[in-house]
Amino acid sequence: MNASPPIVAVCLNPAVDVTYPVHRLIPDSSHRVTGVLSRAGGKGLNVARVLRQLGADATVLGLAGGASGARVADELAHLEVPAHFTRIAGETRRTVTVLSGDEATVFNEAGPQVTAAEWDTFRSDFADRTGGARMVVLSGSVPPGVPETAYAELTGLARRNGATVLVDATGPLLRHALTAEPDVVKPNAHEVGDLVGVPVRTRDGAVTAARELIGRGARIAVVSRGAAGFVAVTPDLACAVGVSERVPGNPTGAGDALAAVLALGLACRDPWLAVLSAGAAVSAAAVACSQAGEFDADVADWLRPGVTVDFI
Amino acid sequence: MNASPPIVAVCLNPAVDVTYPVHRLIPDSSHRVTGVLSRAGGKGLNVARVLRQLGADATVLGLAGGASGARVADELAHLEVPAHFTRIAGETRRTVTVLSGDEATVFNEAGPQVTAAEWDTFRSDFADRTGGARMVVLSGSVPPGVPETAYAELTGLARRNGATVLVDATGPLLRHALTAEPDVVKPNAHEVGDLVGVPVRTRDGAVTAARELIGRGARIAVVSRGAAGFVAVTPDLACAVGVSERVPGNPTGAGDALAAVLALGLACRDPWLAVLSAGAAVSAAAVACSQAGEFDADVADWLRPGVTVDFI
Repeated sequence: MNASPPIVAVCLNPAVDVTYPVHRLIPDSSHRVTGVLSRAGGKGLNVARVLRQLGADATVLGLAGGASGARVADELAHLEVPAHFTRIAGETRRTVTVLSGDEATVFNEAGPQVTAAEWDTFRSDFADRTGGARMVVLSGSVPPGVPETAYAELTGLARRNGATVLVDATGPLLRHALTAEPDVVKPNAHEVGDLVGVPVRTRDGAVTAARELIGRGARIAVVSRGAAGFVAVTPDLACAVGVSERVPGNPTGAGDALAAVLALGLACRDPWLAVLSAGAAVSAAAVACSQAGEFDADVADWLRPGVTVDFI
Repeated sequence: MNASPPIVAVCLNPAVDVTYPVHRLIPDSSHRVTGVLSRAGGKGLNVARVLRQLGADATVLGLAGGASGARVADELAHLEVPAHFTRIAGETRRTVTVLSGDEATVFNEAGPQVTAAEWDTFRSDFADRTGGARMVVLSGSVPPGVPETAYAELTGLARRNGATVLVDATGPLLRHALTAEPDVVKPNAHEVGDLVGVPVRTRDGAVTAARELIGRGARIAVVSRGAAGFVAVTPDLACAVGVSERVPGNPTGAGDALAAVLALGLACRDPWLAVLSAGAAVSAAAVACSQAGEFDADVADWLRPGVTVDFI
C-alpha cells in the first residue's frame, strides 16, 4: 500500500468494555467474579486501532463524557491513536461481557443521553476536523438523543469536505445514510436482511441485497457473511471473497477489521481486487486475536495467498 | 428509643451497584440493556442508611478509590450521611445485577487491591475517628490485601476506645473477629453453618450455633434465618424472634436493617426485648423496599404488634 492519507474514524458511542470471567453462569444466582478486565471499545475505536496497526494516519472523532469517557480518551492517548472527543454531560456507556469457558453473555448499555446542543457541537467539530481527511469511516451505534439521520448528515458534511465516506451501521442509521449517497456501506448479512426485509442466507442473497443498497444510494456495497467471507458489489463488478482456511477464535471485531482495510485501500486508491483480498485476510486474522480491534499480522500473511475471489 | 449516641458503620469494600433490566437473560447471547440504575452499595452503607432513617447519629468509615470511589462518597454526601473514606489507589468495585422479571443474576467484583500502607492508614483513621463513638458496626466483605484479621484488629481498637462492637461478617473474617471478643455478632444461618461446620436448618440448630459463637468469644450472638426471623442468644437468655406476617419483596438488605436496629438499641441501652422486637419489624419492613438500605416505616409499625418472641 501507499503512504496513508488522513483517515477519520467516527465513534459516537464508545464504551468501556468490561469482561467478567466466571466459573459458570447460573441465572438467578450470585457470582463471584474472578477478575475484571476493562478496555476502551466501540466499533469506531476498533476500526481506528486496526488502521493504526496497518500503519495508517487515523484519527478518532466521537462523543465522550464522565469518568468512563475520560478513561476511553486516556486509553487512546496511551495507544498513541490521535482522538478528539466532543465532551458531553452524560457518562460514556459500559458494556459487560460475562465469560464462562467459550460462552460470552453480553450486556450492552444504550449510552448516555445526548442533547441537541451537544450534537450540534459535534457536527461543527466534525466539519472542522474532516477538512483535510481523504476518508471518513462512520461505524456503529449512536447514543440516545443523536438523531437517526446522524450518518446521513455526517456523510453530507464529509462529502462537502471532499472526503470519501464508508458507513458501517444498521437499521434506520443505515437507511437514512443511503439517501446521502455514501461511497461504501458495509453491513453484515443479518443487518442487511433486516433493512431490505428479506433474510440473507446465501452468497447470491447477499449479492442481491448489496445491489439493493446500491439502488438506494451507495456507490459500493460490501456485505459480510462471517466465516463465509463477504460479497463486494460495485456498479461494474460483483464478487464473493473468502479465505480457504478456517480461523478459530473471537469473531467480534472481524467486521471492523474489514472496514479498516476497505477504508485504507480506497483512501490510497489501491487496486480494488488487492483491497478485497487484503480485507479477507486481515478480517479473518482478526478472529485469531482475542481482543476486537487487533489482527494477527502473521496469520494475515499466511492467509493472503489462499484468498479466493469468485466473480459473479 | 432515646436520642442516638454516635455510631460508626464501617464499609471497607463499598461498591457502585449497577442494575441492568433485561427482557430475558439468555446465556451466550447479547442483551440490549433497557436502562441503567446505579447506586452506592455495600453492607456497611446499608447499615448507615437504615441508621439514618431511624434518626441515629451515624458516620461511615471506609476505603474508596478512583471514579467509582468518588461516586460513592458523592452519593453519601447527597444523602447527608457523614462519611470519611480513606483514599486508596485502586478503584472501588462495582457489582452488576441483571434483572429479568423476578430473576436477579448478580456479578460481584472482589474489590480493589489494597496495599499494606493503605490498610495502616485506615487503621490509624479508624482509631482517631472512633474516639467518641458509643457503637461500631463492622459489616461485609473486605477487598483484596486487607487481612483476614481486619475485623479482629478493628474490634480491638474500638474496644480500647470504649465503643461497643457489632460484627456482621462471614468466614475467616468472623472467625478471627471472635477471638477479639466483640459484643455482638450477627451472621445468617447459612454463614454460621459454614463457620461451625454443621448446616443450620432449624431454630434449635441456630441456637446451638449461636451458643458456639458465644463459646468462641462473642458476648451476644444473633443468627438471622431469612423469612423465619432470627434467634438471639446472650449468656442469660435465648429466644427466637419473628413477625407473624409474610412480607413479599426484596430480602437483600434485611440483615443489614437488623444489624442497624441492634446497633442503635444497644448504643441507646434500650431494653433488650424491645430491641429484638424492633429488629424483627424493621428487618421485615426492609423487605418491602426494593432498595437495600431502606425500610418501609409504615410496614414496620404495622408489623410491630405481631412480633413473636419465643423463649427457648
